[in-house]
Amino acid sequence: MDATQDIECKNLTLSMKLMGEHIINMSHELDVTGPKKMIEDIMGADNIFLMGAGRSGLVGKAFAMRLMHLGYSVYVVGESTTPAVKENDVVIAISGSGETRSVADLGKIAKDIGSTLVTVTSNEDSTLGNLSDTVVEVPGRTKTQSGEYLERHMRGEYDYLTPLGTSFEISTMVFMDAVIAELIHITGTSEAELKSRHTTLE
Amino acid sequence: MDATQDIECKNLTLSMKLMGEHIINMSHELDVTGPKKMIEDIMGADNIFLMGAGRSGLVGKAFAMRLMHLGYSVYVVGESTTPAVKENDVVIAISGSGETRSVADLGKIAKDIGSTLVTVTSNEDSTLGNLSDTVVEVPGRTKTQSGEYLERHMRGEYDYLTPLGTSFEISTMVFMDAVIAELIHITGTSEAELKSRHTTLE
Amino acid sequence: MDATQDIECKNLTLSMKLMGEHIINMSHELDVTGPKKMIEDIMGADNIFLMGAGRSGLVGKAFAMRLMHLGYSVYVVGESTTPAVKENDVVIAISGSGETRSVADLGKIAKDIGSTLVTVTSNEDSTLGNLSDTVVEVPGRTKTQSGEYLERHMRGEYDYLTPLGTSFEISTMVFMDAVIAELIHITGTSEAELKSRHTTLE
Amino acid sequence: MDATQDIECKNLTLSMKLMGEHIINMSHELDVTGPKKMIEDIMGADNIFLMGAGRSGLVGKAFAMRLMHLGYSVYVVGESTTPAVKENDVVIAISGSGETRSVADLGKIAKDIGSTLVTVTSNEDSTLGNLSDTVVEVPGRTKTQSGEYLERHMRGEYDYLTPLGTSFEISTMVFMDAVIAELIHITGTSEAELKSRHTTLE
Repeated sequence: MDATQDIECKNLTLSMKLMGEHIINMSHELDVTGPKKMIEDIMGADNIFLMGAGRSGLVGKAFAMRLMHLGYSVYVVGESTTPAVKENDVVIAISGSGETRSVADLGKIAKDIGSTLVTVTSNEDSTLGNLSDTVVEVPGRTKTQSGEYLERHMRGEYDYLTPLGTSFEISTMVFMDAVIAELIHITGTSEAELKSRHTTLE
Repeated sequence: MDATQDIECKNLTLSMKLMGEHIINMSHELDVTGPKKMIEDIMGADNIFLMGAGRSGLVGKAFAMRLMHLGYSVYVVGESTTPAVKENDVVIAISGSGETRSVADLGKIAKDIGSTLVTVTSNEDSTLGNLSDTVVEVPGRTKTQSGEYLERHMRGEYDYLTPLGTSFEISTMVFMDAVIAELIHITGTSEAELKSRHTTLE
Repeated sequence: MDATQDIECKNLTLSMKLMGEHIINMSHELDVTGPKKMIEDIMGADNIFLMGAGRSGLVGKAFAMRLMHLGYSVYVVGESTTPAVKENDVVIAISGSGETRSVADLGKIAKDIGSTLVTVTSNEDSTLGNLSDTVVEVPGRTKTQSGEYLERHMRGEYDYLTPLGTSFEISTMVFMDAVIAELIHITGTSEAELKSRHTTLE
Repeated sequence: MDATQDIECKNLTLSMKLMGEHIINMSHELDVTGPKKMIEDIMGADNIFLMGAGRSGLVGKAFAMRLMHLGYSVYVVGESTTPAVKENDVVIAISGSGETRSVADLGKIAKDIGSTLVTVTSNEDSTLGNLSDTVVEVPGRTKTQSGEYLERHMRGEYDYLTPLGTSFEISTMVFMDAVIAELIHITGTSEAELKSRHTTLE
């Protein structure tokens, strides 16, 4: 396989380095107003719902798993036994563009029901951003991509194929895990306690 | 909610910063022997299969989506229409410990069938590591967690709740996206070409 | 638990008997024009895509699994590695009311792309029915339920909770498995051949 | 396409008729001892967990959706936010052969934890059958298929491709929906009440 004879993985390691630098920059520049409000929303909610399309949906699931481990009542929109949303619930949308149509449509319903809507996005001034009670802006994709995720997917209009280091989904996953770290700190739960608590659940 | 009055998000931003530093270190220290072999395996495969449990499974899905966008024939083990694995296929396992039982069991089958097994893990010297044709070691979780993922999940023995900055899943997602960047470089596909190609598919 | 002291399971067995009678009636009254066309569509397609919301989506997955076993190139809309739809592809929608908004929206895209749209529904005269190249009418739910599945789900407007024997999803699953039986007959594949073919794939 | 010129759909309608007759026979011959116990288990549980592989897993999800609609606390094993199983919970396994390895392994854990294990199977005298507190025997597949579902899937050893009318999955879906009918009867909930209750949840 000649094409691969000369693989030097320079783009690979460069891409990782740029992503790391992007995350460090993000840690310095993050406006914590949104995250603080988001943490309060989570701690005050009866139930928490995560939603997102494509890779953003996977990041939502990864965060939902962690919240469940911490003892929160949390669901992913679209999974089999996810219940109806009620007034005292919090719905967290993840959308790089803030314009993903199916997610924005559900965001409107969430507001209509009276629940609290939180959006994590790169584009604060967007349909989801303007609709939300709480917005967290994660720097990343600057290009606005509107429309329905599955529609674009069906048409082959795939997401921005970031070759070098500024993936919205990775930035968001780092932010979401950092929210978990903060929640553990606030509730004073040591890792040892967490592990022992879980073990004694059996 | 008094507990949240004083949220300063210091753990949140610190956690992000540590994760960024962890990724930059990883970019410097990564042994590219495994990644080079992994890229050759992917480029030479008839079909590529991703597998992993829990959050590692989500990272596998995120990578599989990108490979599909690049035009590869790729599947996620456990989804509805994933076909049987054959001799000229590559199976990529993601497991922090290298010991996740259900994944290791399927790894044995993959080898038995004669396909190429690639493992991305923090623990090269593990059941999956020792079984594999190609191993990529991603630094992260040092603790060995053996056993079946769903079993541990059912028992409430949740994954290591990383409070500060060394999540295996995030490191692996960064590495996997960097593999995509390298593949785009090798095949000489510009982003503009990728987007135009996809748009004309309609 | 007093309430359960007197469980006689009369409703349980009656419900099963009514469902069986409903299926036998359906086998007598089915207009085979749509099913014949659907089978031709499947046999002539480059790729087949299944889509549906909630329980209809599960029935679509169950059918997609069988088609994959028979050797067709088949995908479920919304799974990780499902590719873009193209002109020579067939998209099969499952919707009791024919009005499920997210599915109807995707049906319009499928027509726009130039692919063949097949709808399995209880309501031929519906958005999806009127949009489709091929319609199969499966008797069942007579009530029209319009709107977006996840929207109604989020609001707690659950599907018609059929207590007695006319579930659209079960009728459709029986019909879909019968399509598989017909495909096996047409292609002259004996079950023994199927099993041996699959075994030698290893 | 010559092969399809003569499609008469005789196998299609015959297959549906046989499935209907199979279900009617099942309604007459069902031993209600297991179903009665299963209904008591469900009504007395803190949480209910469904599990199954492949098409049986889809049937479990369809049942879990209905239980959620009725107000039960119910989860599907393997979905993102499914919590740990505890002593007062009920775990319902669906397995035609009663030998699906991954499901049987989890069944052992469920018993180990002290929860109640219910199995719906065609093969009462099987690993899962012998392990369970409650067994429901649904007639269907007589062939014993042992081993791990994903393993067999990866090898291309697909499930018995029932061409003519005795699908375990359909029989089980009919039985499960009949359990819902019985639960609605026992709890005295009219369909009108159910719908109004759900509507007022908003």
